[in-house]
Amino acid sequence: MTASPLLVRFDDGDRTMADLLGGKGANLAEMTRMGLPVPHGFTITTQACREYLAKGQVPAELAALVTSAMADLETATGQTFGAGDDPLLVSVRSGARFSMPGMMDTILNVGLTDSSVQALAARGGERFAWDCYRRLVQMYGRTMLGAEAAHLDAAVADACAGAGVADPTALSVGRLMDLVTHQRQVLKEQTGHDLPQDPHDQLRRSVEAVFESWNSPRARLYRAHEGIPEDLGTAVNVVQMVYGNTGPRSGSGVCFTRDPATGSPVPYGDYLQNAQGEDVVNGSRQTVPLAALEALEPTAFDQLMSHLAGLERHYRDLCDVEFTIEDGALWILQTRVGKRSPAAAFVIAADLARHEVITMDEALARVDGHQLESLLHDQFDDQDGLPWVAAGLPASPGASVGEAVFDSDSAVSAAAEGRAVVLVRAETSAEDLPGILASCAVVTARGGLASHAAVVARGFGRTCVTGVEGMAVDEAARQAHLPSGVVIHQGDVLSVDGTTGKLYAGPLPIRPSSVAAALADPSDEAPDAVVARLVGSVRQILAQADSRARLKVLANAETGPQAAQARRLGAQGIGLCRTEHMLLGSRRHLVERVIVGDDRPGALLEIERIAVDELTQILRAMDGLPVVVRLLDPPLHEFLPDCEDLAVQAALEASAGRVDPGLRARLETARRWHQVNPMLGLRGVRLLTVLPELVDVHVRALVAATHGLRADGFDPRPEIMVPLVADPAELAAARTRIRQHLEVPGASGATVPMPIGVMVELPRAALRAGELARLADFFSFGTNDLTQTTWGMSRDDAQTSFLSAYRSSGLLERDPFESIDEEGVGELVQLAIERGRHTKADIGLGVCGEHAGDPGSIHFFARAGVDYVSCSPPRVVIARLEAGRAEVLGGRATTDDTR
Amino acid sequence: MTASPLLVRFDDGDRTMADLLGGKGANLAEMTRMGLPVPHGFTITTQACREYLAKGQVPAELAALVTSAMADLETATGQTFGAGDDPLLVSVRSGARFSMPGMMDTILNVGLTDSSVQALAARGGERFAWDCYRRLVQMYGRTMLGAEAAHLDAAVADACAGAGVADPTALSVGRLMDLVTHQRQVLKEQTGHDLPQDPHDQLRRSVEAVFESWNSPRARLYRAHEGIPEDLGTAVNVVQMVYGNTGPRSGSGVCFTRDPATGSPVPYGDYLQNAQGEDVVNGSRQTVPLAALEALEPTAFDQLMSHLAGLERHYRDLCDVEFTIEDGALWILQTRVGKRSPAAAFVIAADLARHEVITMDEALARVDGHQLESLLHDQFDDQDGLPWVAAGLPASPGASVGEAVFDSDSAVSAAAEGRAVVLVRAETSAEDLPGILASCAVVTARGGLASHAAVVARGFGRTCVTGVEGMAVDEAARQAHLPSGVVIHQGDVLSVDGTTGKLYAGPLPIRPSSVAAALADPSDEAPDAVVARLVGSVRQILAQADSRARLKVLANAETGPQAAQARRLGAQGIGLCRTEHMLLGSRRHLVERVIVGDDRPGALLEIERIAVDELTQILRAMDGLPVVVRLLDPPLHEFLPDCEDLAVQAALEASAGRVDPGLRARLETARRWHQVNPMLGLRGVRLLTVLPELVDVHVRALVAATHGLRADGFDPRPEIMVPLVADPAELAAARTRIRQHLEVPGASGATVPMPIGVMVELPRAALRAGELARLADFFSFGTNDLTQTTWGMSRDDAQTSFLSAYRSSGLLERDPFESIDEEGVGELVQLAIERGRHTKADIGLGVCGEHAGDPGSIHFFARAGVDYVSCSPPRVVIARLEAGRAEVLGGRATTDDTR
Repeated sequence: MTASPLLVRFDDGDRTMADLLGGKGANLAEMTRMGLPVPHGFTITTQACREYLAKGQVPAELAALVTSAMADLETATGQTFGAGDDPLLVSVRSGARFSMPGMMDTILNVGLTDSSVQALAARGGERFAWDCYRRLVQMYGRTMLGAEAAHLDAAVADACAGAGVADPTALSVGRLMDLVTHQRQVLKEQTGHDLPQDPHDQLRRSVEAVFESWNSPRARLYRAHEGIPEDLGTAVNVVQMVYGNTGPRSGSGVCFTRDPATGSPVPYGDYLQNAQGEDVVNGSRQTVPLAALEALEPTAFDQLMSHLAGLERHYRDLCDVEFTIEDGALWILQTRVGKRSPAAAFVIAADLARHEVITMDEALARVDGHQLESLLHDQFDDQDGLPWVAAGLPASPGASVGEAVFDSDSAVSAAAEGRAVVLVRAETSAEDLPGILASCAVVTARGGLASHAAVVARGFGRTCVTGVEGMAVDEAARQAHLPSGVVIHQGDVLSVDGTTGKLYAGPLPIRPSSVAAALADPSDEAPDAVVARLVGSVRQILAQADSRARLKVLANAETGPQAAQARRLGAQGIGLCRTEHMLLGSRRHLVERVIVGDDRPGALLEIERIAVDELTQILRAMDGLPVVVRLLDPPLHEFLPDCEDLAVQAALEASAGRVDPGLRARLETARRWHQVNPMLGLRGVRLLTVLPELVDVHVRALVAATHGLRADGFDPRPEIMVPLVADPAELAAARTRIRQHLEVPGASGATVPMPIGVMVELPRAALRAGELARLADFFSFGTNDLTQTTWGMSRDDAQTSFLSAYRSSGLLERDPFESIDEEGVGELVQLAIERGRHTKADIGLGVCGEHAGDPGSIHFFARAGVDYVSCSPPRVVIARLEAGRAEVLGGRATTDDTR
Repeated sequence: MTASPLLVRFDDGDRTMADLLGGKGANLAEMTRMGLPVPHGFTITTQACREYLAKGQVPAELAALVTSAMADLETATGQTFGAGDDPLLVSVRSGARFSMPGMMDTILNVGLTDSSVQALAARGGERFAWDCYRRLVQMYGRTMLGAEAAHLDAAVADACAGAGVADPTALSVGRLMDLVTHQRQVLKEQTGHDLPQDPHDQLRRSVEAVFESWNSPRARLYRAHEGIPEDLGTAVNVVQMVYGNTGPRSGSGVCFTRDPATGSPVPYGDYLQNAQGEDVVNGSRQTVPLAALEALEPTAFDQLMSHLAGLERHYRDLCDVEFTIEDGALWILQTRVGKRSPAAAFVIAADLARHEVITMDEALARVDGHQLESLLHDQFDDQDGLPWVAAGLPASPGASVGEAVFDSDSAVSAAAEGRAVVLVRAETSAEDLPGILASCAVVTARGGLASHAAVVARGFGRTCVTGVEGMAVDEAARQAHLPSGVVIHQGDVLSVDGTTGKLYAGPLPIRPSSVAAALADPSDEAPDAVVARLVGSVRQILAQADSRARLKVLANAETGPQAAQARRLGAQGIGLCRTEHMLLGSRRHLVERVIVGDDRPGALLEIERIAVDELTQILRAMDGLPVVVRLLDPPLHEFLPDCEDLAVQAALEASAGRVDPGLRARLETARRWHQVNPMLGLRGVRLLTVLPELVDVHVRALVAATHGLRADGFDPRPEIMVPLVADPAELAAARTRIRQHLEVPGASGATVPMPIGVMVELPRAALRAGELARLADFFSFGTNDLTQTTWGMSRDDAQTSFLSAYRSSGLLERDPFESIDEEGVGELVQLAIERGRHTKADIGLGVCGEHAGDPGSIHFFARAGVDYVSCSPPRVVIARLEAGRAEVLGGRATTDDTR
């Protein structure tokens, strides 16, 4: 038989063909090759879909290919499609290149008609046959109706209510027959046509409907969010039906080769007796844990365990498997590399590497900084302070506090206003995706660990608790009744612990994650074995990252304790020590005294004394490692009282007939130093022309601290950085002034060699980098300021006034303050590096803006050839991980798209 | 005789050798070739000077070359150097490549000794001989002593005081002898050595002293200001002495081939009987006008007139000539292309072109925008309102008001504080240069039109009045007594009219120059023939500029009258119409109503009505020419009341126990719209996300105005410009919104094709220009904002807080807001042009920042390939001139450095 690019039989494919067969089809073919008990079937390819989408009709040659493949299927199964004594039914399943869980349609039991249902009943019983039929009508109808499918759901709900049962599987045969009649009436009313009674017609329409579902709004939203290209199309798998709903010896399950929440190396999943697959996933009936299957169906269980182990070996990763048991016989219906929680990602990658299933580089490539970041998320500090009001399954770890909302739209609009929200639902479906993305946590009354809510929340790092038994969610009334009697109203604050599955009414205080604590203090013992295993895995992968990284990770710190913390977290020095941070709070008045000239020498001496003390602590904590001290940067008026406050005070004094000359003088000073656009005003190196003494003190203090530590046997490595330089002449002047202080020898008579660098944080500095390099030992890219000036927008103003509107309207894909704008700011960085290196090939290159801690940005900096990034101490481990990944992945995408 | 690069005889050189011979030497050689009565002599070259400056000693071979050249000089003159019955004396004159008037030293009468003075006396009389001797000692001593030369001046002053005479030429022989003795004592005390009594030793030391004077502080300052390279060195001319001080039939003069102040085609100058050249220039004695020479020495006068005409023909330009008459015989001592006032520059260039001495292109190259700008300077409006208190010579035209200061240092420090000052001096010397540069006007008691003060002030475009007879300047007491009895104290405000020579005590109101008025209104008749000639010359040259220019000149305007004025001045359209200007003043409240939402529809309607009216006027005034309308640009809070004012009001109300809800609401609104850095905040295209209606009104108004004018038979050419775009997505969104309004047809049923452009005024817009070009019909470079963001400094803050300090400390050569920063902002402009054209080869390119009216910047934009600049209406003519010059000069320097 000649292979066609439009249709491929399971026997003819393998997992490398995912582009053509979609993920599901490729894996079904792969499992068929492995000899696993996979039903017979074939895949209508993504190319067929693309042709359909482009031309609006099925490719002409497809019909004959399907007819031929169906004939082979009949031969293989010994059944006749939708006819005869033993009718062959098929499932029609979508399956795109990239997993889009729940986004597209699947139709089971295709081939059932008014006549074949009788034959099926004769073989498997009337209840079974009519249950299949009502499912076919439901799924076929849902696919045809799209948004109007609620009418069909209502028909099911009516039938259950009429019978007084919770679930349609509990309906009698008669009621099932009535239900099918009712469903077909709805279908006819809404679409104008009945369920086709020609099985081939059913099949043809089902395939087309799945093609169409590629362009459904929810599928488009998902792809936009996940960055999946629009033009890939989906494959359609046509598979021999096997039945989990023939009775108690049948059932369907979803499982993982390991625990996808913790990474524990034990298969994990849910099983539902007498059910087809959709029943498990949609959480409409309560599942039993996978382990319970051992007692129910020991043979099938043993086979399943063996196959799971085989799949994990074969795929070299956590696998997610769907299976059905039909009268005691096991069928594997689907597998794929499984999604996992961030914690599980680390534990599994490290474990597989330990067992040499994968290399350490692969382990490193399989985790990322966003996952590590979620592990470092805060946890609740004092759960004893507030009794929990309900408990469910810990579906996605984390600890979040937010206002309860009861629908996706409310979640989206509240989030747009900057409020943290918890989405509370009976269960979630694909329509809820925007709401889940907008929420910090999701809570559902129904569903297990593999439910839609759980899978999506884990994938996006949202806290999630599912299966809160007894919780009654009243969406219309916007409230949820808990079994404890507590009622949660919209707007009530909930604390959700995704690690324990507990819910709390009210806000809980928060403390750092145990992973963060363990990483910050190696001597700290892990609270339990799960945490210990996780911390061990993170450490193992971080060590691999460190061994690979070319990009060094330094930290921003202004105090000794911060520096010590950063060093414990693996920082290789301080890349940004902001001298102005030593002058905040109660020390602000010192700068005011310098500005006003009120005992200026005394105030300067006090500032210098403070700086010597702080810098000594920092240099001591970073003994032997570089500490880059930035000269005073902010506009000086930040140290003065607010003009408006003083003006109000002065006006009130005057109206009371009093005159306070001191107040008037302060107001005049504040006005004189007021800047219309402080960000673009008198600050940084520009202070050298106006108050050079205030710049000198920190240079002198750094020299003094260095001399002091040397005398005590330490090895301080200070460096100086000049901020806000636009022109080489400014740097030359600053350098001359700084070097005067550096020539002062210490007690030993020796002077301190101290590299002098320049912040490249203005477009002009980037453009003039060739000349700056002559005067600078290193560049430090201040990407915050560079973003502000390159875009002409200040962070203070942009965020609240228009940037959020830009993002929500899609005008801006990413916030350039969070992730570096490679096309604008990035080009200036690259240009500065090129010009700087052209002048001085070995010039040091660092980054000290917020982007230094952002995973995507770190890869950019690594590619651009930067030597180090300097981020806040808590982000040091994230930066270390990404610095290593940047080397392992090279120019490849920062997330592993094969999963 | 073999030519040496170190020494060249006048017979062997010509004017093309100015690099080697300096300007003076090359012109002396040229005049020698022309057969003019030039004394014999030779030039020690700039190369000799450079070798001296590099090695610190005179080149070894120079001594022999000088000895040989002096021997030839003795042969040619029939005299013996510093010896014999008829001793040869020489002048030793500096002469660099570029004229540095008064900056370097000249020594006359070199070769006089105690013995040769006797021989000279025997030939020319004792008074003459000893006058020469005291001059030699004075000049030689001044050169040796430098800053300590005041001791020598004191000796002269003492001698005059003792004799009761005003001037040393009036001293008796005995007193002259005593003076020489006294001067030589001072010289010995201060330098440790006497005047050498070996003539060759005198000559050698004098040459070295002139070499040294290249590096005097005042010479360095002059070069820095004029942009003359430091490494050129000066030539030294050794010239046979001829004597203007032998008696009444002798004298010295300085003259121009035409009037250097007005350009009138009549030779013009000063003559002083019985004087050597320095007496004329330093203004220590009152000169007579050149015309008076005709009566005194008719033969020499006729010869001089003939030579002046010949020189102007030969040099094809105004020449500046120094001459001496010795016993009735004329000697030409120096010539060069003469400095002239801006008015004279235009009149002379146009006149020479009219007489086909030069081409019109040459005429265009010989004037510049700075000169034209000074002609457009304001004049006093009402001179009748204030009686003049003194009058002198109108040495440099213009009208200036400033505080009187009496020394250079005070002028510099007051100017640094931003105060306008008038420098009042008895006479000025090279030491006063910094003070003249710092002042808006210079007034001297002594000196003629060719005095130091007059020449320097004209060169730098400062208003100047010289020779205010009877004015007694008391520098120590910081006051000047005028003949009228008025006393001017330091700090008193003076009004100085450099066109009439009148001084006024107090400030005079100011009105535009008659040139500006004539250009603005062609029907306006010139007040007199001088103005008429000037205006005619300017028009003639402007017409040539227009015929050459590729760069179009448009204007910025927001009202019909402004647009009409701009058109009269030659603007080819409106390149920037700022819609926000239509909403200032009493209309501000309309925007506030829109923001607050208080009858928003009504306020928007009113804003649209105003805009339709204003835009109709502008489009009508510019009928058939493009009018580029910029959408609302400034931060909206500019239209709201000030937060501080409102807070004070609210606090006062509250303290009085009153509550004004309206006031509180306004304060809250003002606070909500307040921007921390308004320049980087919610403005320009960003308003589209927040208040799109406020952007719409101007688009609708422009469409309505266009339809209206078309219906009336006009040909309006509106264009729209979107400000502050950083990303192509913003422009795409704005374009979509704008185009909706453009689709509204007019009465005729036709829609208006309206080009949509983008302001390139943020670094990111320049970087993304390739993509912006896809969405834009034209780019308009907003170089003000682009400078602010590229440098990270706002004009509001930088000017007062550090930019002036940067300039005075030399950290910044030019204010990047005045003249485009080619290396930073300019690179972004070039890059944007390159990328924009790569996408769309014919994209329109304009500039609408302040730089559009700056001469130097215009040449940059022309080189960069910009299509048009748009400047304020009064600068249109300057821009037109420079646009033409840019083509004529091509890549050459913007000033003609051969003058």
